[in-house]
Amino acid sequence: MDATATAHGQSAVVLLSGGLDSTTLLAYAVNAGFTTHAMTFRYGQRHAVEVDAARRIARQFGAREHIIVDIDLRTFGGSALTSDEAVPKDRSHDEMRLGIPITYVPARNTIFLSYALAWSEVLGASEIFIGVNAIDYSGYPDCRPEYIAAYERMANLATRRAVEGATPVHIRAPLLHLAKPEIIRLGLELGVDYAMTSSCYDPTTDGKACGRCDACQLRLDAFARLGTKDPARYA
Amino acid sequence: MDATATAHGQSAVVLLSGGLDSTTLLAYAVNAGFTTHAMTFRYGQRHAVEVDAARRIARQFGAREHIIVDIDLRTFGGSALTSDEAVPKDRSHDEMRLGIPITYVPARNTIFLSYALAWSEVLGASEIFIGVNAIDYSGYPDCRPEYIAAYERMANLATRRAVEGATPVHIRAPLLHLAKPEIIRLGLELGVDYAMTSSCYDPTTDGKACGRCDACQLRLDAFARLGTKDPARYA
Repeated sequence: MDATATAHGQSAVVLLSGGLDSTTLLAYAVNAGFTTHAMTFRYGQRHAVEVDAARRIARQFGAREHIIVDIDLRTFGGSALTSDEAVPKDRSHDEMRLGIPITYVPARNTIFLSYALAWSEVLGASEIFIGVNAIDYSGYPDCRPEYIAAYERMANLATRRAVEGATPVHIRAPLLHLAKPEIIRLGLELGVDYAMTSSCYDPTTDGKACGRCDACQLRLDAFARLGTKDPARYA
Repeated sequence: MDATATAHGQSAVVLLSGGLDSTTLLAYAVNAGFTTHAMTFRYGQRHAVEVDAARRIARQFGAREHIIVDIDLRTFGGSALTSDEAVPKDRSHDEMRLGIPITYVPARNTIFLSYALAWSEVLGASEIFIGVNAIDYSGYPDCRPEYIAAYERMANLATRRAVEGATPVHIRAPLLHLAKPEIIRLGLELGVDYAMTSSCYDPTTDGKACGRCDACQLRLDAFARLGTKDPARYA
């Protein structure tokens, strides 16, 4: 969280899905003075429209580089986001909070962070930013602070940096303890245009959000709680 | 190492490159009574001939499933195994032992284990086998015991199993402390036909090993120390 104290053009890999959280994250890293290298995954998810959003966002925030990595999580099945299972709609907040949602993708953040770790090593970057959030996604095991801490410990044993005594790798998750309205407030202060972001698990082919999946509901609710309107396009 | 005590048809994901170590590993897991699910990566490496070797080996040992996962580590550069840099040849053992070899692929084992973790979660498998070796590959940070232990700790915070209180995930690295001749001796006892395995970093297009890269030299030397001949085909 003390990114501002250490940046000065240091390189950082930023995991950017093109959604609300990761866009705020990129704005945060840029604002803190990091030279950002954005990384987006195309993983057979239905919402490939996010990848286009990510491209525009990386450009707008002046990321030094932006790479799109193709990975095929469908090989394993196991999630409504990567298979033909239906994305749940119109669930109450209580339903969302019960257990692990079927939109959970097995080990997704572990795979994403591992690619980021590989790239950070090649770049000589010691910072990896990930937009996980322990409040709104409390059902996802890989969004918890103890997971992030354990990943960082592992990462510092995994790479050349470990053996060669370079600066340790930091896994930075500045949104970890923020509620969705606080994330939006932060982003608005940092100049994020949320009309550019795409959060929906089941968007229309022309990129409109469904307004009914968990991600849409959490987002609409957060904007409402801030007394403002979500500028994203809804079907 | 105490796999024999716990198997009885339990499911295990086995990382299988088709090389000497991972083939011995698969034989070990099968012999210990695990139902094996083999996972091979095609990662833009020159030695794609290993993938064909892996297919034949998985079939021979009766792996329940074998999946080939395409990943593009070339995106990041940084290794002679995935770029156009020359694979070093005819190095002495002292040269091999100095520092991290240029054949090191950034965060490779971390990426491989992360895919294996995702698959193990979908399968409900609690065991992941990896053929790392701390003796012959001492220059690779992600072949050290402390790395494997840290990965296991992280993995147990990363997935549903963690949250739902299921059996913890075990990262099994039974070759970790074996020297190459010991690995070969173990494999021969378990019925491995090393003619099927491919270890070379720079094989010919028809699948013959070069005999001069680090991997070939370590292997030839190990067979020689056992007083036997490496049955692999050399150019």
